[in-house]
Amino acid sequence: MTSITGVSAVDVRFPTSRFLDGSDAMNPDPDYSAAYCTITTDGPGLEGYGLTFTIGRGTELCVAAIDAFAPLLRGLELDAIEADQAGFWRRIVGDSQLRWLGPEKGVVHLAAAAVVNAVWDLLARRAGKPLWRYLADLTPQQVVAAVDFRHISDALDPDRALDLLSARVPGRAARLETLLAKGHPAYTTSAGWLGYPDEKIERLAADALADGWGAIKMKVGRDLEDDVRRCRTLRAVLGPDRLLMVDANQVWEVSQAIDWVHALAPFEPYWIEEPVSPDDILGHARIRAAVAPVRVATGEHCHNRVMFKQFLQADALDVVQLDACRLGGVNEVLAVLLLAAAFNKPVCPHAGGVGLCEYVQHLSFFDAIAVAPAPDGRMIEHAAHLHEHFLDPIRTRAGHYLAPEQPGFSIALRPESIAEFRFPDGPVWRTAR
Amino acid sequence: MTSITGVSAVDVRFPTSRFLDGSDAMNPDPDYSAAYCTITTDGPGLEGYGLTFTIGRGTELCVAAIDAFAPLLRGLELDAIEADQAGFWRRIVGDSQLRWLGPEKGVVHLAAAAVVNAVWDLLARRAGKPLWRYLADLTPQQVVAAVDFRHISDALDPDRALDLLSARVPGRAARLETLLAKGHPAYTTSAGWLGYPDEKIERLAADALADGWGAIKMKVGRDLEDDVRRCRTLRAVLGPDRLLMVDANQVWEVSQAIDWVHALAPFEPYWIEEPVSPDDILGHARIRAAVAPVRVATGEHCHNRVMFKQFLQADALDVVQLDACRLGGVNEVLAVLLLAAAFNKPVCPHAGGVGLCEYVQHLSFFDAIAVAPAPDGRMIEHAAHLHEHFLDPIRTRAGHYLAPEQPGFSIALRPESIAEFRFPDGPVWRTAR
Repeated sequence: MTSITGVSAVDVRFPTSRFLDGSDAMNPDPDYSAAYCTITTDGPGLEGYGLTFTIGRGTELCVAAIDAFAPLLRGLELDAIEADQAGFWRRIVGDSQLRWLGPEKGVVHLAAAAVVNAVWDLLARRAGKPLWRYLADLTPQQVVAAVDFRHISDALDPDRALDLLSARVPGRAARLETLLAKGHPAYTTSAGWLGYPDEKIERLAADALADGWGAIKMKVGRDLEDDVRRCRTLRAVLGPDRLLMVDANQVWEVSQAIDWVHALAPFEPYWIEEPVSPDDILGHARIRAAVAPVRVATGEHCHNRVMFKQFLQADALDVVQLDACRLGGVNEVLAVLLLAAAFNKPVCPHAGGVGLCEYVQHLSFFDAIAVAPAPDGRMIEHAAHLHEHFLDPIRTRAGHYLAPEQPGFSIALRPESIAEFRFPDGPVWRTAR
Repeated sequence: MTSITGVSAVDVRFPTSRFLDGSDAMNPDPDYSAAYCTITTDGPGLEGYGLTFTIGRGTELCVAAIDAFAPLLRGLELDAIEADQAGFWRRIVGDSQLRWLGPEKGVVHLAAAAVVNAVWDLLARRAGKPLWRYLADLTPQQVVAAVDFRHISDALDPDRALDLLSARVPGRAARLETLLAKGHPAYTTSAGWLGYPDEKIERLAADALADGWGAIKMKVGRDLEDDVRRCRTLRAVLGPDRLLMVDANQVWEVSQAIDWVHALAPFEPYWIEEPVSPDDILGHARIRAAVAPVRVATGEHCHNRVMFKQFLQADALDVVQLDACRLGGVNEVLAVLLLAAAFNKPVCPHAGGVGLCEYVQHLSFFDAIAVAPAPDGRMIEHAAHLHEHFLDPIRTRAGHYLAPEQPGFSIALRPESIAEFRFPDGPVWRTAR
């Protein structure tokens, strides 16, 4: 029997704000960062890794929250976790005193994601499989048993979830074969940061097309005239058939969002992302009704399954952009994948940042094999930054993610990167400040 | 000119779990706690105090988050804050890197509440007024200028807010006179904690009636048979005319909540509080439609104005139970008071815990004088615990709160209480562990 012996966390920050990588209308100067968690065991050489993504100041709060969860993890046996995954998850997010600080949102939920994902990484490593394959090898019953249906049972109960998964068993081998051969469809955000000058955006977009990308996302929302000009530029580069998505990062009011999207409509955006507050389910529903056929996408700040449930019940979105560590880790991601399937909406996970691409590829491969009712419109977000810091970085080809092959969740950072970017004592920060 | 010179925070925890004070179906063993914030200035003897309420583990995260906000406060001039209150608030909650950790929810928002409330305490102290009177002496224009309408303007814009406030100017003197003479209506929760035996609940309820309380709340949701028995007992003590409220603290599913409330309906509960997840706007709406005439009350975990906006838009509640430090402090409370007025729903703030009664009395007195369109159904929650630790504790008489008289927000803790209950180094915790 193998048990967890310790949980530790470190604050790692990359100074991305120095180059305006990742700049958008709400977040002008992010320093892509991570509260990075290591779980040790008494198994020889067996550790698990997880992180929660942040953008600089406050990462120390997530590190401290991971420390607060550590007593709930120490001593747990891995076999017992596998035998009662939902119980394990509820043990973490259900600690009543820590739960008060959310509940199931904010710093404690971000930190829960890091430790929960580290446990899944650990289990997949122990099984010698990449996480997506570890998940795909679970039976429908085992997947259902990993989900906490609390507060979502009015939309999806275990029986219905089992039906959905069972219905997707036929054809798995063929879907797997296609995914292994071609990879998983994706789109790229790397061209369109708000802080980039027009010439850089145009050049990066042309480069992306040359690399085989068929769908590009750009940031909007600071200035309408700028947005119109950039959309025109990008649409010209893309031609009429490739997809152009736009992302406002929450900066609008409801009626303003509707007007702004109407002004961009001539450039045929495929979706408008995060038009208003990520909490505003009813606002998204109103916008969606007004801007169709432009789709509404949201989810990177949607903090738990209860919020996604309502976005789906209210018909407030077209595209489910779940985040691997805004939600409380793999268990809650499974809940949202199942909810999306129940409402027949495609999941296009939020990525970029640092580590998010590494994370979500596993979730989307599993979704494609075992959950999603149809492939239509399913894409993984891609951004080109910071992959060099991971031991098992993403691999893309012609606008697709290739299947991860190494055991685990691909989220382990290189030790030398941790040493270099550790905050505040790493060389990058000592010399900068 | 007076400026802020420093911000500090301390972790104070009261071992309430030892006596099951505060126990409910979701929170079996809370240790009522506070991340307590002191803001210093260069004005002689002028400091401001604020806290955010927690229930034990994780309070250190809120302390660390207050520390993270400190650089945004140091050097600010009090006159400049008063001249642009909404701008001040947005400076705190809008820091893009810290905002990522919410946004506007969880630990960072709880901590924002502590510092924002400390600033209002400071301003009221400087003016030599209790906070409720400092607020009531603002012009309607000044109140509107303290509110950030971002992401709520589809439900309430500044013009409409000004109209609402202006309509309440007539009759203020008379309302003030009544409040000063009689106090503000209230109800008590001190009798009905889930961890108390039946005999204790019956005895405490009888004592409360003898003290003049006309409305009592009890906790439900762990066991239906227990709840029926306790409701019967309490209804017998209360007689047919006094109010009995029940509070499930989020433990039910939607359909379960409806069935359970129907089972308690013979005892005529005035409201059902927090039946399901506090994020579940649509679930509350469904429950409300099914259990009328029992009212639906929620809000203590409603984390920002965008959520309250939707609860009101969806007609999902009857009673707005805003929390003084779950929302981002006074500025956001003002937004929700105005939203509630716009939708003509009574505000009955969440209190109890430690310091919440001290806080919310100011908000309700101001609401009664300057915002609420009608007094019907407006009550302040009351719990008897921990008031002895405050320098300006609440005073109640015959089921009413008496108007606070000392300058500020009444939230300053006694230094000797801080020394005794400071975590982990106070004597109470050193000897206990």
